[in-house]
Amino acid sequence: MTNPTATLLISCPDQRGLVAKIANFIYSNGGNIIHADQHTDFGAGLFLTRIEWLLAGFNLPRDLIGPAFNAIAQPLGAKWELHFSDTIPRIAIWVSRQDHCLFDLIWRHRAKEFIAEIPLIISNHTGLKPIAEQFGIDYHHIPLTKDNKAEQEIYQLELLRRYNIDLVVLAKYMQIVSEDFISKFPQIINIHHSFLPAFIGANPYHRAFERGVKIIGATAHYATADLDAGPIIEQDVVRVSHRDTVEDLIRKGKDLERVVLARAVRSHLQNRVLVYGNRTVVFE
Amino acid sequence: MTNPTATLLISCPDQRGLVAKIANFIYSNGGNIIHADQHTDFGAGLFLTRIEWLLAGFNLPRDLIGPAFNAIAQPLGAKWELHFSDTIPRIAIWVSRQDHCLFDLIWRHRAKEFIAEIPLIISNHTGLKPIAEQFGIDYHHIPLTKDNKAEQEIYQLELLRRYNIDLVVLAKYMQIVSEDFISKFPQIINIHHSFLPAFIGANPYHRAFERGVKIIGATAHYATADLDAGPIIEQDVVRVSHRDTVEDLIRKGKDLERVVLARAVRSHLQNRVLVYGNRTVVFE
Amino acid sequence: MTNPTATLLISCPDQRGLVAKIANFIYSNGGNIIHADQHTDFGAGLFLTRIEWLLAGFNLPRDLIGPAFNAIAQPLGAKWELHFSDTIPRIAIWVSRQDHCLFDLIWRHRAKEFIAEIPLIISNHTGLKPIAEQFGIDYHHIPLTKDNKAEQEIYQLELLRRYNIDLVVLAKYMQIVSEDFISKFPQIINIHHSFLPAFIGANPYHRAFERGVKIIGATAHYATADLDAGPIIEQDVVRVSHRDTVEDLIRKGKDLERVVLARAVRSHLQNRVLVYGNRTVVFE
Amino acid sequence: MTNPTATLLISCPDQRGLVAKIANFIYSNGGNIIHADQHTDFGAGLFLTRIEWLLAGFNLPRDLIGPAFNAIAQPLGAKWELHFSDTIPRIAIWVSRQDHCLFDLIWRHRAKEFIAEIPLIISNHTGLKPIAEQFGIDYHHIPLTKDNKAEQEIYQLELLRRYNIDLVVLAKYMQIVSEDFISKFPQIINIHHSFLPAFIGANPYHRAFERGVKIIGATAHYATADLDAGPIIEQDVVRVSHRDTVEDLIRKGKDLERVVLARAVRSHLQNRVLVYGNRTVVFE
Repeated sequence: MTNPTATLLISCPDQRGLVAKIANFIYSNGGNIIHADQHTDFGAGLFLTRIEWLLAGFNLPRDLIGPAFNAIAQPLGAKWELHFSDTIPRIAIWVSRQDHCLFDLIWRHRAKEFIAEIPLIISNHTGLKPIAEQFGIDYHHIPLTKDNKAEQEIYQLELLRRYNIDLVVLAKYMQIVSEDFISKFPQIINIHHSFLPAFIGANPYHRAFERGVKIIGATAHYATADLDAGPIIEQDVVRVSHRDTVEDLIRKGKDLERVVLARAVRSHLQNRVLVYGNRTVVFE
Repeated sequence: MTNPTATLLISCPDQRGLVAKIANFIYSNGGNIIHADQHTDFGAGLFLTRIEWLLAGFNLPRDLIGPAFNAIAQPLGAKWELHFSDTIPRIAIWVSRQDHCLFDLIWRHRAKEFIAEIPLIISNHTGLKPIAEQFGIDYHHIPLTKDNKAEQEIYQLELLRRYNIDLVVLAKYMQIVSEDFISKFPQIINIHHSFLPAFIGANPYHRAFERGVKIIGATAHYATADLDAGPIIEQDVVRVSHRDTVEDLIRKGKDLERVVLARAVRSHLQNRVLVYGNRTVVFE
Repeated sequence: MTNPTATLLISCPDQRGLVAKIANFIYSNGGNIIHADQHTDFGAGLFLTRIEWLLAGFNLPRDLIGPAFNAIAQPLGAKWELHFSDTIPRIAIWVSRQDHCLFDLIWRHRAKEFIAEIPLIISNHTGLKPIAEQFGIDYHHIPLTKDNKAEQEIYQLELLRRYNIDLVVLAKYMQIVSEDFISKFPQIINIHHSFLPAFIGANPYHRAFERGVKIIGATAHYATADLDAGPIIEQDVVRVSHRDTVEDLIRKGKDLERVVLARAVRSHLQNRVLVYGNRTVVFE
Repeated sequence: MTNPTATLLISCPDQRGLVAKIANFIYSNGGNIIHADQHTDFGAGLFLTRIEWLLAGFNLPRDLIGPAFNAIAQPLGAKWELHFSDTIPRIAIWVSRQDHCLFDLIWRHRAKEFIAEIPLIISNHTGLKPIAEQFGIDYHHIPLTKDNKAEQEIYQLELLRRYNIDLVVLAKYMQIVSEDFISKFPQIINIHHSFLPAFIGANPYHRAFERGVKIIGATAHYATADLDAGPIIEQDVVRVSHRDTVEDLIRKGKDLERVVLARAVRSHLQNRVLVYGNRTVVFE
């Protein structure tokens, strides 16, 4: 899809005529819709939709689309986001010691599975610096102690600003990001190495082994102040048996973590994820 | 959902304004859309959509909805079907000797997973008659030989007419239905005990064993003249190992067959399946 | 396999020569081994094995096999169980209001997936009595109140004795069985409608919906005093999406519960499950 | 497991006393068995086993183990292989243009998921040479035309000999290897991008799309003269929908291909795969 598109993500109290009103807005301005999906959460009384159309032939200039749509959205009580497909998002990947998710994200980026730029890697360790160098990505080592966290988060935020980052991917960054940080930079996707809400917190594979589960999982979610409790974007699982040691769970889990994180990042970058409450709609 | 709804399934050459035109038709007549999903197959140049709305408050009487929509559909070159949720479809289940799919469909019917009636079972054997009696369903034994097939199909068609059947479910009916029969009664869902197109035809589990596969599957599809080649509605798989004998594959396969067939029948009954060419869109 | 077999399930501190000693015991008495599997948990220092052989041609009479093997097991510090394949286990199924697991177990029994007898159904409700009657199984209605539980458990135990029951299957029996009861009758398999340890306790599907998970699961485990914490025998999962309501989760979950419970019961009945600590080895 | 071990893979006509005889051979020479698994294919009348023991404390010197075991194997009519865990196998990876499997195998090698050396990459294209250089692996470009294949295979065989290669991994090497080549170097694992035996041959994703399947797969197998018909080591699948284009199938398939190939290579390297007829036993 090389022709630029616009995408609206809308959530709105459910009411008659929403599909018609939104579709008419696109159509009356000459837009050709190439993707539209909607979902109604009847329990919550919410209508949620994603609509994507070709900018070629659309009569409104880009900077007027938002204001024009707002005139429709306001009376409906709708919240909305507008994205253009040729605005390339910029990602910072945060890592600690493990390299599998980092490698995988870089490989997918090279394979053009992600339309994004990855100019920045941040780590509390130095171990993965050679990978950053190998692929020509800036690597900032920001070591953490009990005492320097608040200060270092100021530096991290400063880096995100300097690099013009749109999305932080915690790719096995084994540190907790503070509530304050998240409030200032909320676009953060984390990969947790368990099938949440099972095994919240530290050492999920060890605890899965202890509990004797027959299946393990991984969960990609938006980071929130409450640890491992943010809106889930994607999960997947793999079967294990009594023959699997903790090391086997960790090895099998890495394959899960890679693919689950990648799917979540891809859905986010394609503006397919709509958060409401603590839930997500992932439009397909 | 006890409030009756109308559902349109539409396929149409892709063109600007389709979503708006269809949504406006519903909205301008006072309809409240509760489900809408669309898909564009860019390769085929086709727009496919499912739209469901509450009849309560809709201004058009039922018998005028079709004609009124046709006035919109005609100029677009659209093909469409209209269904009402309170028109309960009537199912005939065809079986041979195996009872697992029959049992399962009956259980799901009792559990209200299917909104349908099951007044008729047809079999080329007598073995499952007691189940029919147990659940108060008419059972017609129609034995087949090489010579009587054409004649028996006339009788089968007559039964479908007499019982006012909307859908035939081949629930492990181990006989081929003729091209002629299908042309006269095309609404037929079959369950094939392999992951099509692997192991088309007879004895798929034996051949799967011979081939040494590590996963087996089942496929629910619409019956067509070309054996096991009809549009696929649903598939699923299960892992097997060298420890599994042919008998184990058959046993594990039964669990697949039950659930795959049930999902396909349910999607069909909810008017969520749209066939185009040899493919299906299963709206979710 | 119509030729009767003997099966030993053995757990033992790991040490040199175990496989040879056990195999020699069978071989030197003329036994033909048809299944042997072993597992060493190096962390726990435990050797666990299952060995099954044909009784035809075995030189020891049945009642001497146990004592003879004990002479070998004692010095090794081994715990062991001996089972004969032609001793048909007797199952009591306990239910509340939901019928899907009950129906499924009965169907599998008829289909000879389980070599067992099912002479008894116990329920705290009367709703499923017609199913029991339909299939000729005794149904005992044992209503529970806050005050009568201890007393009713005495009656339940008395029934298990009277019917000579070997295994209790809690097939969606929505009541807690007391620690005292379990200590007196420990052979109990429960199906929990979540992917344990996620959503321990009541209403797991509602809580899964609230949490916005993308996958739900079911878990079959041995009942222990600690609720939903017993050794896990089998788990499985199914994918859900934002389109699924709580009712959809319940419906999809039923398919999981049926198959997960059935697999666990079948493994148990084939003497393939060995419990150690809070873990199981399920020999394949 | 840093203590070196010996592993025997044995296949043998089924007969009384096999487990005992083999276990006694290890035990009587002072060996400590750390893994033993067996399988009897009753249809084929074959007993297949894998047995692994610690070399520390074993009384026989390495070069006498084979001859000593042969004295036992001969009268039983057994075929066997003997492997030592500290003999590091050497892998040649063959690629064409796609890099995902190559990258993945290299990453897993670095992560120590494979105990092996990867000294050689062979390709009929030059595109992936930079990756080889990046990771310090020799890259031989061997272009293929209709006319030079026989000649180039001689060169390829010469390279395998020169590099002392034990295993060839066809990591999306989109060329057919001749029957003659395979007869001279039979240790070849191929990844096929379909769920075999579905979509044998070229363009499986395009044909899967045409057929409208709801699940796609990947298959790792030993290469044989008959294209895509060799013994299957591992398969896995992923769900697709009408929304997935051929490009989406290719993208999703890459994740499958990586993990399926890696699992097969790992099982092979751990001497867990035993081929008999056109089937494999993969000991766990």
